[in-house]
Amino acid sequence: MIGYGFMGRAHSNAYRKVNQFFDLGYEPVLQAACARNGKKLKTFADNWGWKSYETDWRKLVARDDIDAIDISSPNNTHLDIALAAAAAGKMILCEKPLAMNAQEGKAMTDAVEKAGVANMVWFNYRRVPAIALARQIVEKGNLGKVFHYRAKYLQDWTISPKVPQGGAALWRLDIDVAGSGVTGDLLAHSIDTAIWLNGPLTSVCAMTETFIKERQLQDEPGKTKPVKIDDACAFLARFKNGSLGTFESTRYARGRKNQNTFEINGENASVCFDLEDAHRLGYFDHNDQKGLHGWRSILVTDFEHPYMDRWWVPGCVIGYEHTFINALADFLKGLESDKKLCPDFKDALETQYVCDAVLSSAKNGQWETIK
Amino acid sequence: MIGYGFMGRAHSNAYRKVNQFFDLGYEPVLQAACARNGKKLKTFADNWGWKSYETDWRKLVARDDIDAIDISSPNNTHLDIALAAAAAGKMILCEKPLAMNAQEGKAMTDAVEKAGVANMVWFNYRRVPAIALARQIVEKGNLGKVFHYRAKYLQDWTISPKVPQGGAALWRLDIDVAGSGVTGDLLAHSIDTAIWLNGPLTSVCAMTETFIKERQLQDEPGKTKPVKIDDACAFLARFKNGSLGTFESTRYARGRKNQNTFEINGENASVCFDLEDAHRLGYFDHNDQKGLHGWRSILVTDFEHPYMDRWWVPGCVIGYEHTFINALADFLKGLESDKKLCPDFKDALETQYVCDAVLSSAKNGQWETIK
Amino acid sequence: MIGYGFMGRAHSNAYRKVNQFFDLGYEPVLQAACARNGKKLKTFADNWGWKSYETDWRKLVARDDIDAIDISSPNNTHLDIALAAAAAGKMILCEKPLAMNAQEGKAMTDAVEKAGVANMVWFNYRRVPAIALARQIVEKGNLGKVFHYRAKYLQDWTISPKVPQGGAALWRLDIDVAGSGVTGDLLAHSIDTAIWLNGPLTSVCAMTETFIKERQLQDEPGKTKPVKIDDACAFLARFKNGSLGTFESTRYARGRKNQNTFEINGENASVCFDLEDAHRLGYFDHNDQKGLHGWRSILVTDFEHPYMDRWWVPGCVIGYEHTFINALADFLKGLESDKKLCPDFKDALETQYVCDAVLSSAKNGQWETIK
Amino acid sequence: MIGYGFMGRAHSNAYRKVNQFFDLGYEPVLQAACARNGKKLKTFADNWGWKSYETDWRKLVARDDIDAIDISSPNNTHLDIALAAAAAGKMILCEKPLAMNAQEGKAMTDAVEKAGVANMVWFNYRRVPAIALARQIVEKGNLGKVFHYRAKYLQDWTISPKVPQGGAALWRLDIDVAGSGVTGDLLAHSIDTAIWLNGPLTSVCAMTETFIKERQLQDEPGKTKPVKIDDACAFLARFKNGSLGTFESTRYARGRKNQNTFEINGENASVCFDLEDAHRLGYFDHNDQKGLHGWRSILVTDFEHPYMDRWWVPGCVIGYEHTFINALADFLKGLESDKKLCPDFKDALETQYVCDAVLSSAKNGQWETIK
Repeated sequence: MIGYGFMGRAHSNAYRKVNQFFDLGYEPVLQAACARNGKKLKTFADNWGWKSYETDWRKLVARDDIDAIDISSPNNTHLDIALAAAAAGKMILCEKPLAMNAQEGKAMTDAVEKAGVANMVWFNYRRVPAIALARQIVEKGNLGKVFHYRAKYLQDWTISPKVPQGGAALWRLDIDVAGSGVTGDLLAHSIDTAIWLNGPLTSVCAMTETFIKERQLQDEPGKTKPVKIDDACAFLARFKNGSLGTFESTRYARGRKNQNTFEINGENASVCFDLEDAHRLGYFDHNDQKGLHGWRSILVTDFEHPYMDRWWVPGCVIGYEHTFINALADFLKGLESDKKLCPDFKDALETQYVCDAVLSSAKNGQWETIK
Repeated sequence: MIGYGFMGRAHSNAYRKVNQFFDLGYEPVLQAACARNGKKLKTFADNWGWKSYETDWRKLVARDDIDAIDISSPNNTHLDIALAAAAAGKMILCEKPLAMNAQEGKAMTDAVEKAGVANMVWFNYRRVPAIALARQIVEKGNLGKVFHYRAKYLQDWTISPKVPQGGAALWRLDIDVAGSGVTGDLLAHSIDTAIWLNGPLTSVCAMTETFIKERQLQDEPGKTKPVKIDDACAFLARFKNGSLGTFESTRYARGRKNQNTFEINGENASVCFDLEDAHRLGYFDHNDQKGLHGWRSILVTDFEHPYMDRWWVPGCVIGYEHTFINALADFLKGLESDKKLCPDFKDALETQYVCDAVLSSAKNGQWETIK
Repeated sequence: MIGYGFMGRAHSNAYRKVNQFFDLGYEPVLQAACARNGKKLKTFADNWGWKSYETDWRKLVARDDIDAIDISSPNNTHLDIALAAAAAGKMILCEKPLAMNAQEGKAMTDAVEKAGVANMVWFNYRRVPAIALARQIVEKGNLGKVFHYRAKYLQDWTISPKVPQGGAALWRLDIDVAGSGVTGDLLAHSIDTAIWLNGPLTSVCAMTETFIKERQLQDEPGKTKPVKIDDACAFLARFKNGSLGTFESTRYARGRKNQNTFEINGENASVCFDLEDAHRLGYFDHNDQKGLHGWRSILVTDFEHPYMDRWWVPGCVIGYEHTFINALADFLKGLESDKKLCPDFKDALETQYVCDAVLSSAKNGQWETIK
Repeated sequence: MIGYGFMGRAHSNAYRKVNQFFDLGYEPVLQAACARNGKKLKTFADNWGWKSYETDWRKLVARDDIDAIDISSPNNTHLDIALAAAAAGKMILCEKPLAMNAQEGKAMTDAVEKAGVANMVWFNYRRVPAIALARQIVEKGNLGKVFHYRAKYLQDWTISPKVPQGGAALWRLDIDVAGSGVTGDLLAHSIDTAIWLNGPLTSVCAMTETFIKERQLQDEPGKTKPVKIDDACAFLARFKNGSLGTFESTRYARGRKNQNTFEINGENASVCFDLEDAHRLGYFDHNDQKGLHGWRSILVTDFEHPYMDRWWVPGCVIGYEHTFINALADFLKGLESDKKLCPDFKDALETQYVCDAVLSSAKNGQWETIK
């Protein structure tokens, strides 16, 4: 695994726990962690039980005792590592977004397909039980013809002009490291979920804004640098199935900490979701008895709900970290079968194309067709 | 109509509006309003279009041009007026609670039954569409065997020791005028609803408390008087149908303005309600499809919902005042048929027996059987 | 008053009730109702106490005993009536949207300004106490710099292809009578509220869709006609204050009956609202004590809340109809002072310009600047 | 650790994870697991990484290489194991309820105090961040004088008469193993939380019910046995601080999976909580600005919230299992200091006294004073 930040912790935790909760043919071995800062890395690796560590990812990729590379480092490192890992025949688990842009993503996807290595992108929210339940509802056909898809992903942690950019923790505000702002960080999630639940998008029209034009550099106190990422982004969309989509994301929505929502309105039923209450799914069924129609708040903790038979008992929720464990379990189960791992690089590339079209549309003020 | 306070307004409004919204064989004529304070009464009567006014209720009752007496004055006046009105052969619409205690209530009930006059008690919450919908659900048998009934009625307006007692506005805090505190004022509502939805109670065990022992008199600044009403009351109950009940009421629940709630748990379904969101009914149906169970929030504004075809269109709510108009419409429709008016004095007497048992139990610390 | 439909009822009710609840210098007299169908009109007028009736609006406008004209008839009648009424020196109260398009609206606005007659447009949702409270919060400056404004207006009553178009009840689906679909009917509300709370919009980019291409004519069973209105519309917007806006409306959102929502995210605070729970306002204040931040659900029923001192007591809600009564009270109070009546034709024309730009943008796929 | 059921899993998980997330002086070693069924035990121990296992708890207690005994086995085993473990000088972590009754609990408490061994009872809900935040609010004095405490703990998993009793999984329905029904299983949680937040109870008055009188034995198909536990229990209470309490618990509340709620109403503020939305705390502050009062929904995921700085980032929730990890971290930190571990046997004994009084009151229909 490369990277020891927030995602490094989440992934390490998943590797350590997955086999206690899922019956799997494979068991991850925490062979080596990798990062540039050796001292911090050692502390991290010791804490999580990584057997060894490397400060140069190229050495990691070159090791024979390693079967899989987990790319948990910032976005601008994904391409090189993925290409090298694929060339070395390693399985790859890559954090989202797949890449800095679709061009990079395409190269990465081509590389893993050519190498024939198992690959996955950590779009962990597909593994929220309530979202997986929404997918089941869609697959059963309960919704009927879909008219509307609307999604928001709102946060509020960059409102203060004092939040710096760059460095280990705040690279998400630095265009050179992140590639984009909320589009790649947050809307990528929304788009991945949308494609999974409602199929491909065909065209988009977007606007973006950077509210704070300049921020201090975290690593060089006193120095400032223009902010080039999108602080906020909203776009209209049309889906292949004829439905209309609206998407919005920002880090300037005071009071919204991690409000990742979607709602799908179909002819016969609707579903809605909010990550801030991730254990619930809203569901409205037009086939309910006359006079008793109402939005149901499904507490997604029963044994028959996705993933929940592996955890505790009805009424006992799981949390953020479990989405990674569920994802890893799916990946490992996938290795045992011929079933396509999902979402893989190819799926994530679709999302990347949408992100690119969104950013391009925001620049030129036109509708953009999705490749 | 006797009384020009809060209830006087609500009733006057109902008399004026009912025929515009309901198709009825009868149309109320606002013949005369009555209260002791002639000056205030005149202003009130003029505002609402009452054709005349009286300052002595005995004169009102004696008038030949009046068919119905509406008792909207404080609790300690109900008995005498009702007896006189019944003796005079007038229809009677009486505010709740029926009386100061069951003894008075029994005398009133006997009087109207002997006189054979139409009678109703304004338990207006039966006419909240969502509560009426709950009744329909119960009647359809959706719940199955009932295990639990729980009710709360919480307010917070008497927390300050500066709130005085007595006078025109605050007689509800004066034991001599009100008869009791939250038990007669708020729990009477909860009990009436409970009996309507879940049948008779058979026994109760209660506790009461008076948090503020002394309050100033509103009409005599500087003078204080001990507070003798129950500021709060909670009781356990058993229903005839074998279910268990819990009831609680207070005016000391900071943040709860008018939180009148109930929940019924049956074998196959449950319902719940909160007056602070009176346009919604919660409903959980165990017969829903596996994996899609959830509490529904029914927006009770559709044409097929009780009373709502008389008002606006789906999605447009009615408010507090409409419960009185709905009640009046039911009363007037009842006059056209042989159908028992509901709730009448006899129904309200049942509630009064429960209230008395509750207060008695709170005093002696024992379970009390309901007569 | 011209028109006896849904709005005719709401307005009649307002005229009858306003003086019982508000202390006003003026009292409306229900002089005459007007509509083409004389028989239905008579029933309507009798029910509501209109003193006389006319079947030709030109005669109504010509009458000397009438000071004010209320235009509650379909959109395609607004222009002619307003021009005539202004010419006759009558005050005008006009239903929204102001007109079929901005060109008509401009003519109407010019006419009333030239004539110097009092005028108002019934954007009744400004008079929802919770929305008026939001306005107070904005005016106090609690929000700080605003980053985002998002609004939705979702309904579901036209999903069935069996819903016909045209006729007295369903003219809202007929382009020739309504001028547009959800844009004029629902988004006009959202835009009016947005301008009131967040100031003018400067540019928009929209998409619209007509999901059901053909519907039966209500008045000519068996015959169908293409549907030309917008069934759904979504648009991106930029406000003059630098904030970003997203708007969406549809009549195809299964389960949403009248979900008119908005949320404003400011630097220091946010507010949110949903018409389906119209008695509540969401409020998040960043200045709350650390660790105790949270969205407040303000129950807007206290005496200090807008309009609520005129109605019942804390905890007792008002409903849909009261927005019209509150609006009328504001209008009548406005007549007593020099204060601009609000929203008047000029305000409504601003909204109309936005609507026109939205529809135009949807057609040509470009951003449109607001005049 | 003794026991490999639901709690055995939860505790094992806690031992394995606690040191990755908390900086602690101690690190648990998973020395040995113990249960009677050797085969199942082996599978369990292997899965969780227990180094060895025993099928006789007496052998476990006798081992020198063990410092602490975790009692995760059914209630009727707590006494003997605890006495033996204390005598052997082991630290003890015991599942709740402490014992079958207060008599046993007293003996256990005396034993650990005499032995001077560290001891804790797993009342894990004290470690829900939102409940810990409620405790902070209470300690800061935000509430002022407390008037009311109300708690519910509702589930619905025993409604079907087909649910058997006894055996490894369903011993909670067998009086001989569980000691009581919802009182010891669920209300013990509610009472522990109540004492922690609102101080000691002084008297109670209860009712209980057993709705299904006979159930099949899980281990002996075809045989039935009378059900002796309390299926439901409700009680009134008085607290030492003068506030009134109401408590209710059942396993027959259709639609409530794990609805453990409480609300405290104080003079100046109120708090409320529902375990089904465990990441939120309701808070109403009377000191908020006039007109802007409202219940806040605090999303308890910020770094300044209890425990949350050890987990992920704001907006990312933790789940059921983390309450055990937090509890264990507190226990281990407690070992490093002189600070009393909390809740220890003595605290749990207080709860046990209340449970006993509740069951006794339900039997004799009288108020019972708490020892």
